[in-house]
Amino acid sequence: MSLGSGERCLPLGSVGADRWRSVLGVATDLDDTLTHHGELTAAVLGALEEVRSLGLPCVVATGRSLGWGAVLARVLPVRAVVTENGGAYVLREDRGLRVAFMEPDDVRDEGMRRVGRCVEEIVDRLPALRVVHDPAARVTDVALDIGERTTVDPAVVREALAMVSDAGLHGITSSIHMHVSYRRADKVGGLRAALGALGLDASALDERWVYVGDSPNDAGAFGAMALSFGVAGVRRFGGRMPSWPAYVTVGDGPEGFAEVVAALRAGRSE
Amino acid sequence: MSLGSGERCLPLGSVGADRWRSVLGVATDLDDTLTHHGELTAAVLGALEEVRSLGLPCVVATGRSLGWGAVLARVLPVRAVVTENGGAYVLREDRGLRVAFMEPDDVRDEGMRRVGRCVEEIVDRLPALRVVHDPAARVTDVALDIGERTTVDPAVVREALAMVSDAGLHGITSSIHMHVSYRRADKVGGLRAALGALGLDASALDERWVYVGDSPNDAGAFGAMALSFGVAGVRRFGGRMPSWPAYVTVGDGPEGFAEVVAALRAGRSE
Repeated sequence: MSLGSGERCLPLGSVGADRWRSVLGVATDLDDTLTHHGELTAAVLGALEEVRSLGLPCVVATGRSLGWGAVLARVLPVRAVVTENGGAYVLREDRGLRVAFMEPDDVRDEGMRRVGRCVEEIVDRLPALRVVHDPAARVTDVALDIGERTTVDPAVVREALAMVSDAGLHGITSSIHMHVSYRRADKVGGLRAALGALGLDASALDERWVYVGDSPNDAGAFGAMALSFGVAGVRRFGGRMPSWPAYVTVGDGPEGFAEVVAALRAGRSE
Repeated sequence: MSLGSGERCLPLGSVGADRWRSVLGVATDLDDTLTHHGELTAAVLGALEEVRSLGLPCVVATGRSLGWGAVLARVLPVRAVVTENGGAYVLREDRGLRVAFMEPDDVRDEGMRRVGRCVEEIVDRLPALRVVHDPAARVTDVALDIGERTTVDPAVVREALAMVSDAGLHGITSSIHMHVSYRRADKVGGLRAALGALGLDASALDERWVYVGDSPNDAGAFGAMALSFGVAGVRRFGGRMPSWPAYVTVGDGPEGFAEVVAALRAGRSE
């Protein structure tokens, strides 16, 4: 498979020990990065525990809903989960969770009304697209299934993205969902807000945080963060990503994530 | 600590190999059984993967909400999650999830109106009790925090349980929450329904499924299922459980769960 503009991606071995030693935290996508066929593995939990044992905070940044974030922030060894591509985040606190949004209620309410109308038109015209129904709250976007329970023709996804854009709204795809929102997808903005709320230095994100991801909704982070890693599956998005990760792993999904953590640990002990 | 009526609990070594070989599946509680301080561990994910590698289905049965169930059924290597102490369940399907309730909508709606009124009176009279707000949908009960973000005096919990009972409703506690519902907590009923929906023999639950749990909302399963295991922490509920597990592990929480799985694997290979 052609890597397209990603051909410049470098192997992990080219990250110097100094660089690894400078790392202040690890941010990561969830689906097809921490999971394989949607499932967490013992190996990836081991890698997350390893990050914590290195004394580094870990934050997940996902297109999944706020409801998912509330569960994952509780059960995974992470400090926060940024959800809905940066629209909201959930922080682990001493004995519970704190939920925060990027915009005030009235902006969200009006935005979601416009999103609702646009999504209605999309599923009317393109019946291959279905809204993802999830008993966990989604508050800043609507997700359409393009690869989780079904497989949707990329041409249909492109047409839907054009409709979103024509409506003055924002569309973005992950490996499984197409998200329609009143706000531009911005995992990095969400990460900065979450880091600030955790009392961490958000300005360190660009140079001193690791980011691991696999798909177009990670492109913003790939472009903004110098230590950005694509797991091997990122190659399938050749030509459809505005920014590529600086480095690419050999393994895909959780194996790729574990590779990054192993290189981080090894680099810091050199 | 006194084990109370649990003194008759036997060690895992007393389960014969024949018994282990007869096992058809593993059902387990979540909080303080699969988790430690609320977190999943690499070791417990390894134990869940081990259950699957033995060719056995695993089903989680928890007091957590339907929204939690939808996330956990997706990210854990399990076939289903029974939620809200048996009020609803989520099945893993080929490429997605199926959600089902134990009662029709009108019964749930009317029941939850009564629960809402009762909970209002409880938090009015007993301000130490707070409703658990969770961005993941809860559909058949209301949860009050007694040990997750706060620590509530057991006398207050007893008074609240009496108010629930006086209102003709049902109250039950886990290690972290007190649940108020229009329906009697019944993880076993939920498990039977989930097994049936998965096409598995629900009548095998009593004798040929393993159950692992830690607290009063597991007592129904402890009483109904012959191969019932309490993790060590179950001992702290001495005197407050209507039924005790047949066996108790040495380790607590995920360590206890892993002990059961290790004994299961060893027993089946004897």
